[in-house]
Amino acid sequence: MSSLDDVLVTIDTNHSAAINRLFDLLAIRSVSTDPAFAGECVKAANWLADELKTIGFSAQVRPTAGHPMVVAHAKSNQRDVPHVLFYGHYDVQPADPLELWTSDPFTAQIETTETGQRIVARGAADDKGQLMTFVEACRAFFEQGGLPCDVTILFEGEEETGSPSLPAFLSANKEELSADLMLVCDTGMWDKDTPAITTMLRGLLLEEVVIRGASRDLHSGMFGGPAINPIRVLGKIIGDLHDDTGRVTLPGFYEGVEELPEEIAQQWRALPFSDEKFLGELGLSVPAGEDNRSVLEMIWSRPTCDVNGIVGGYIGKGSKTVLPAQASAKFSFRLVGHQDPIKIQASFKQFVKAHLPADCEVEFISHGASSAIQLPIASESLTRARRALAQEWQREAVLAGCGGSIPIVGTFKRDLDMDTLMIGFGLDDDRIHSPNEKYEVTSFHKGARSWARILHGLAL
Amino acid sequence: MSSLDDVLVTIDTNHSAAINRLFDLLAIRSVSTDPAFAGECVKAANWLADELKTIGFSAQVRPTAGHPMVVAHAKSNQRDVPHVLFYGHYDVQPADPLELWTSDPFTAQIETTETGQRIVARGAADDKGQLMTFVEACRAFFEQGGLPCDVTILFEGEEETGSPSLPAFLSANKEELSADLMLVCDTGMWDKDTPAITTMLRGLLLEEVVIRGASRDLHSGMFGGPAINPIRVLGKIIGDLHDDTGRVTLPGFYEGVEELPEEIAQQWRALPFSDEKFLGELGLSVPAGEDNRSVLEMIWSRPTCDVNGIVGGYIGKGSKTVLPAQASAKFSFRLVGHQDPIKIQASFKQFVKAHLPADCEVEFISHGASSAIQLPIASESLTRARRALAQEWQREAVLAGCGGSIPIVGTFKRDLDMDTLMIGFGLDDDRIHSPNEKYEVTSFHKGARSWARILHGLAL
Repeated sequence: MSSLDDVLVTIDTNHSAAINRLFDLLAIRSVSTDPAFAGECVKAANWLADELKTIGFSAQVRPTAGHPMVVAHAKSNQRDVPHVLFYGHYDVQPADPLELWTSDPFTAQIETTETGQRIVARGAADDKGQLMTFVEACRAFFEQGGLPCDVTILFEGEEETGSPSLPAFLSANKEELSADLMLVCDTGMWDKDTPAITTMLRGLLLEEVVIRGASRDLHSGMFGGPAINPIRVLGKIIGDLHDDTGRVTLPGFYEGVEELPEEIAQQWRALPFSDEKFLGELGLSVPAGEDNRSVLEMIWSRPTCDVNGIVGGYIGKGSKTVLPAQASAKFSFRLVGHQDPIKIQASFKQFVKAHLPADCEVEFISHGASSAIQLPIASESLTRARRALAQEWQREAVLAGCGGSIPIVGTFKRDLDMDTLMIGFGLDDDRIHSPNEKYEVTSFHKGARSWARILHGLAL
Repeated sequence: MSSLDDVLVTIDTNHSAAINRLFDLLAIRSVSTDPAFAGECVKAANWLADELKTIGFSAQVRPTAGHPMVVAHAKSNQRDVPHVLFYGHYDVQPADPLELWTSDPFTAQIETTETGQRIVARGAADDKGQLMTFVEACRAFFEQGGLPCDVTILFEGEEETGSPSLPAFLSANKEELSADLMLVCDTGMWDKDTPAITTMLRGLLLEEVVIRGASRDLHSGMFGGPAINPIRVLGKIIGDLHDDTGRVTLPGFYEGVEELPEEIAQQWRALPFSDEKFLGELGLSVPAGEDNRSVLEMIWSRPTCDVNGIVGGYIGKGSKTVLPAQASAKFSFRLVGHQDPIKIQASFKQFVKAHLPADCEVEFISHGASSAIQLPIASESLTRARRALAQEWQREAVLAGCGGSIPIVGTFKRDLDMDTLMIGFGLDDDRIHSPNEKYEVTSFHKGARSWARILHGLAL
């Protein structure tokens, strides 16, 4: 087995070459949502497979109904070591609006700022820069004699479009892709000096509701009073979904929602985080959610019910005295802990139906349901990863939540029963999905070193 | 003075030509609420002024701050005859949703059904078809020697947007527009065989509310919980505006609302009216308004609060996890008796403001306010009109209420102290403000004959 120190020195020595390699990958316009770039997605997959073969993996580009997958394997030369599956994605968001970029999005630049250097390009942080931290760590191990763990790598090219081909691919290659632990590098640090491990991801339930009343739009003068108004029905439903303390009133909604373990609660309270600053940047000043919860709690560990869109009746300029025949709203529920999206979906439908007056009908349109992810914080692999990160950054890693969802983590948990360590080196100001996306050079360099320490630590 | 019989024969003879003239007017897209159609409103005004001049009126298109007025005058060749002011409006509601029309809304069609023929077009009933009944009656009188009364005509182009320019116009032209009696043809018959005179009109208060929260649209994963959602705020407002018995909860809302006089209540109870049939034609079965009120009461003599339009967030297909920065809704209040629209407007604004959580702002956009109208039912002109209608239709006219509002009736009463005879030939199933608006050919033809009889009767 390689000496960790030698591996870290190799990563340092390789740094300039690693930057150049990343630049080559960033030059490939692998925008997954636009069919015009399908060829570029294939090119990125080929580039990665070639790179992994050069390092020492056996790697293949594998077709799907959409953009191809890259699958690579390498055994450690040690026995009885853990087998990890690393997941990343080579596809990127569209670069437009192009005019807001200060340099070409697919010609990476190093920009020097007061706080250090950064790599500016589409995909620098999401996710090409991040996935290459792991590749560079593996390269250094191979150069120093071999990997400390058995490693499988899966790169997909459809993460930015909702991973449509992933479930079928997992199901068709279940055995090949199963491992002891999954590693994902698509999350962020707490701040530029403090690493983080994301141990909670909120789930998401998306339900559209269409309320229909009369068989046609009616004049509110001729029919206002006796005729039902679907907008009023919808308003009542929305109004009744929360109580005065900001809690969701759906029966059974909080089943599976647990209070934070004291260790985590303490850590979060101690974090240098200002509710005022966070809200101030949005033009807000008072947290709008449940009473007596901090902003971090609300975003990371509390469920929500929101309306993401509503429409009914006349929405042009001026007025029109119409009683519309229908009104609709798109509801979303962010889920935490062990909340069951299917039970909540049923409870929501029941709630809506119980609010329907005579002569109203409802149509439900489901746009997806995923459970929250909560990693056991006492697991051995998490403990080892924390230790490794602390050694690299000289700071304890924050055990963070994430308000958004990374659906593939749930997919792997459900289909392959694998837990995931989500460790990434992005920063809040990386402008992912926006013009002038960047990735700190420190994130890239120390990210690779972090993975080396983590792989080494997992195998001890 | 012309012989009434000759005039009636002339109307019959002119019938086909009258239909063609109406089709020309219906082809003009005079949608007043949408600034894109301002030119079409001018075109409709010019068309009407030209038509009135052709008949024998002196007619002018008169500018306002909004769409123009048409004012026309003609004296009877008899002396000591009454002077009537006829009011109508040439503007129409928007035609959308276009896809629900079976033919182009601005290319009128004659449709033949089991019960007769109908004219299908936007504005066929509201109000172009109706106002042309009066114009055609006047044309026949001129062709037969002259009008039986002095006649002033006022057509406006902003009725569907709350007549914003009318009060100033009346005040600037008070003397020119004053007459003994006002005639309005914007109401309906009791049924297709039974005429009606409308003696009660509901008032109308139109208020648009825009709720604003964060300074920009937010991602519901990253910000859901602590960030305020304006759709939820609006939903709560809408939900709280009614109690469980269907009454409006605004403080002071029912001040000035009186129970029906027993005489009227008895007449209404005796009318052949079926709540089930009325609702059944709308695809409904149960009156949705206040508990323990009949449908006729709800529409003719009870106030309402409704939402005519709502929009916020993502309203396209599928889902988007956005917390919108704003949401808006258009509210309307139908008023009765002595309800004061200004007091109710203030109460509503107060109610909305009391519902605003921290960090929310509200903008109010007023689209007009008018009181309810209640006419004296024992006047001489009403008696003569009832007699004329009975002669044409061979049925007694019902003294009806009307759920809709004709705010100008109140304006004329207040500013020019004129009473109004509201007589129209619309039917409940005319789908005014809806796709496939229609006007019965019988209404158009016998409507013109009715006005001939009424003008003749008023001058006896």
